[in-house]
Amino acid sequence: MPRKDLLDIASLDREEIEHLLDQSAPFKDLFTRSVKKVPALKGKSVLMLFYEPSTRTHSSFEVAAKRLSADVTNFDVAQSSITKGESVRETIETLQAMRTDYVIVRHKASGLPGTIARLTRASVINAGDGAHAHPTQALLDAFTIKEKFPEPAGRKVLIVGDILHSRVARSTCTILKKLDVEVAYLGPGSLVPKQGADKVRRFTNYNEAMAWNPDIVYLLRVQMERQDVQYFPSLREYHKLYGITDARLEEIRKRGIYIMHPGPVNRGVELCDAVMDYERSLINDQVENGIAARMAVLYWLKPGGV
Amino acid sequence: MPRKDLLDIASLDREEIEHLLDQSAPFKDLFTRSVKKVPALKGKSVLMLFYEPSTRTHSSFEVAAKRLSADVTNFDVAQSSITKGESVRETIETLQAMRTDYVIVRHKASGLPGTIARLTRASVINAGDGAHAHPTQALLDAFTIKEKFPEPAGRKVLIVGDILHSRVARSTCTILKKLDVEVAYLGPGSLVPKQGADKVRRFTNYNEAMAWNPDIVYLLRVQMERQDVQYFPSLREYHKLYGITDARLEEIRKRGIYIMHPGPVNRGVELCDAVMDYERSLINDQVENGIAARMAVLYWLKPGGV
Amino acid sequence: MPRKDLLDIASLDREEIEHLLDQSAPFKDLFTRSVKKVPALKGKSVLMLFYEPSTRTHSSFEVAAKRLSADVTNFDVAQSSITKGESVRETIETLQAMRTDYVIVRHKASGLPGTIARLTRASVINAGDGAHAHPTQALLDAFTIKEKFPEPAGRKVLIVGDILHSRVARSTCTILKKLDVEVAYLGPGSLVPKQGADKVRRFTNYNEAMAWNPDIVYLLRVQMERQDVQYFPSLREYHKLYGITDARLEEIRKRGIYIMHPGPVNRGVELCDAVMDYERSLINDQVENGIAARMAVLYWLKPGGV
Repeated sequence: MPRKDLLDIASLDREEIEHLLDQSAPFKDLFTRSVKKVPALKGKSVLMLFYEPSTRTHSSFEVAAKRLSADVTNFDVAQSSITKGESVRETIETLQAMRTDYVIVRHKASGLPGTIARLTRASVINAGDGAHAHPTQALLDAFTIKEKFPEPAGRKVLIVGDILHSRVARSTCTILKKLDVEVAYLGPGSLVPKQGADKVRRFTNYNEAMAWNPDIVYLLRVQMERQDVQYFPSLREYHKLYGITDARLEEIRKRGIYIMHPGPVNRGVELCDAVMDYERSLINDQVENGIAARMAVLYWLKPGGV
Repeated sequence: MPRKDLLDIASLDREEIEHLLDQSAPFKDLFTRSVKKVPALKGKSVLMLFYEPSTRTHSSFEVAAKRLSADVTNFDVAQSSITKGESVRETIETLQAMRTDYVIVRHKASGLPGTIARLTRASVINAGDGAHAHPTQALLDAFTIKEKFPEPAGRKVLIVGDILHSRVARSTCTILKKLDVEVAYLGPGSLVPKQGADKVRRFTNYNEAMAWNPDIVYLLRVQMERQDVQYFPSLREYHKLYGITDARLEEIRKRGIYIMHPGPVNRGVELCDAVMDYERSLINDQVENGIAARMAVLYWLKPGGV
Repeated sequence: MPRKDLLDIASLDREEIEHLLDQSAPFKDLFTRSVKKVPALKGKSVLMLFYEPSTRTHSSFEVAAKRLSADVTNFDVAQSSITKGESVRETIETLQAMRTDYVIVRHKASGLPGTIARLTRASVINAGDGAHAHPTQALLDAFTIKEKFPEPAGRKVLIVGDILHSRVARSTCTILKKLDVEVAYLGPGSLVPKQGADKVRRFTNYNEAMAWNPDIVYLLRVQMERQDVQYFPSLREYHKLYGITDARLEEIRKRGIYIMHPGPVNRGVELCDAVMDYERSLINDQVENGIAARMAVLYWLKPGGV
């Protein structure tokens, strides 16, 4: 049964996740055709509400919506009175009154997409809210992993970086565990949350983490513009301690390990230049799969009665 | 007979206004359908020329045009050479040469849309020019009022705020008088023009204005970024003197008076938070009706011979 | 045989140029119809990648793509991590992964569109790269000239201004010579490259240049924001030495000479106000023809196998 909103991965059950991953594949097949478009959402309107800029996620959703033949309107909050103190509630009521079918929202406040979802008939898709969730990133990541490991249960994914502040880590870890993938974290002690009920293994040392034998190393982006920098001794030091250096890439290649990264990459920080040519880098697959996964989500959700 | 341009309300006769209001209703009905789109303007191009930013009006026109299946292009004047001193005439000739069918223009200079209209074959819609006119706001306001009062003649609308500098006040007052609605103004003496030939009543005291027995109180937005602030003792004082306070809302509720506002609202200034939940607030109706009224305008206008 | 990319004029042979010019005419005819759109590129996606802002060129390509029924997505590099140091290579891989069919790129670095073209399956159109090339400008210029001179061979075009730094001068001169049009340059000695193998005549004096008897005077835009200003004594002086003054316009009118300019015009610098009303000014024709020529290019190119 389709849902109205996609706010996080935690509230989806395994069957729903499998359905969305299965649905992503035919949309991806579409991209190899001359006409990459289907009329599925013809006459539907999608409103982009990005309080935080993000060229890639914005473009990915926009292309996904257009390939479903929806009409996309950008609600330009940067220049909006929203930033001059308009209340979120009033913005929501405006969206509601515009009778848009889908709202795609990114905001630095955790939980805001959920607030919008409760107050509007439109289907709300969370495109990243604070450190809380980024569910379409999780879906595209899981879809990318399933392309390589059709039966992912028991596979091992090592997530590296600032786990504490990362909505990507949170959402992707959640989806992987629902698929019975084993997950471990590697990062500075101050940026990896203490082990709790989730039973995710923690490493603070690269060699120990690699001794765990991961199938995939998933590098988080260092958010230079956010809080990360204060926790690191230096970017050079970060690269040396947690990054994929040339030497480490050699070993990774020998062991046949895949590399993932949500993009955009800070080269020389999370990874060295040579990773760009590494045959088991899935970074570009993630970009392409992002459009397919978002099409599957848009196609699956059911906007509320009008 | 359709016109080429919509520059102000004053130049429309009553029959034309009634026609546009009647035409707005079926477009609004469309919004409750699954497919909110009609092919009426398929193959037509709409160019947005906003010299002043306005997220809401811009989005409203954009959604209206797309629901008519027109193609919308944003002429990004903010980053244009226009701002580097390109003459308006050259911009107009460029639009003309691009063979766009509709130009939707907002500018701080009164009369600029009229200049553009004279020099181009395209249909020009004034989306607000200085303190002069904002005709689609007037149409959506009148349409909203007619939904509540199908025979509006003789009804009373009290417009509150900075009348002097407000194109909304000017346009909405004009349309209401053409529909034989009684209009009165309430505001600080310095911001309400002296009574002239228009026979609109003036109040400077809230209680006196309410003793006039309005059916609707229409609150203008305090333009914090413009000239208004200098005329007010303070925002708190403004709220106390002319705003809908909690106490006043109680009385308004008892008397069954409707509240309107062009948005976005400055809460705690024009009105208190509780107005957002007031069952006779028409503020969200205005947003939805804005799209319908603009569709009616786009559908009605006839671009010049090509 | 169609090509994948349009990077410059130099690599097109005469037959290809003639084909593109011939194809522009029926697209232009389309603009006089009520529906200015054809379904030729329905289902194709066009990505706009403008590292340098340009309202006119951006709008022209956008309108051209939409009139071919393509979907247009703006990759907002201004707010992108690209500007925060993302490598061009990573951006290209992202575009590639998005499976866009066409990329329209403007960048200050000469040769960047060629780099993108080599690394992606998408058709790449150079919308201006540094001082290197602006091939669609050349095509629209040649198309505009052929409308007046269907057999342009032997006609004379005088290009005036900063030849040295102008991609417009370079591309337009190249196409004209391929069409056997005679070209000469007029400008300050420091801004006109020394005569080389191209056999283009050089003038530094207006009267001498006019004694050469041009059919068309093509004025380059003075790039106030770029390097030009330092080479000129003053804008007033530039106008006096190389601009179309009122007195010179009189002579030009008597001799029936056409005037062209790529826009936007600096009035009082390259030309006096009266040129705007000059019956043989082709400046607005160039704008309209720009859309037609770009439609012809988009229609002709063949994106790489997917």
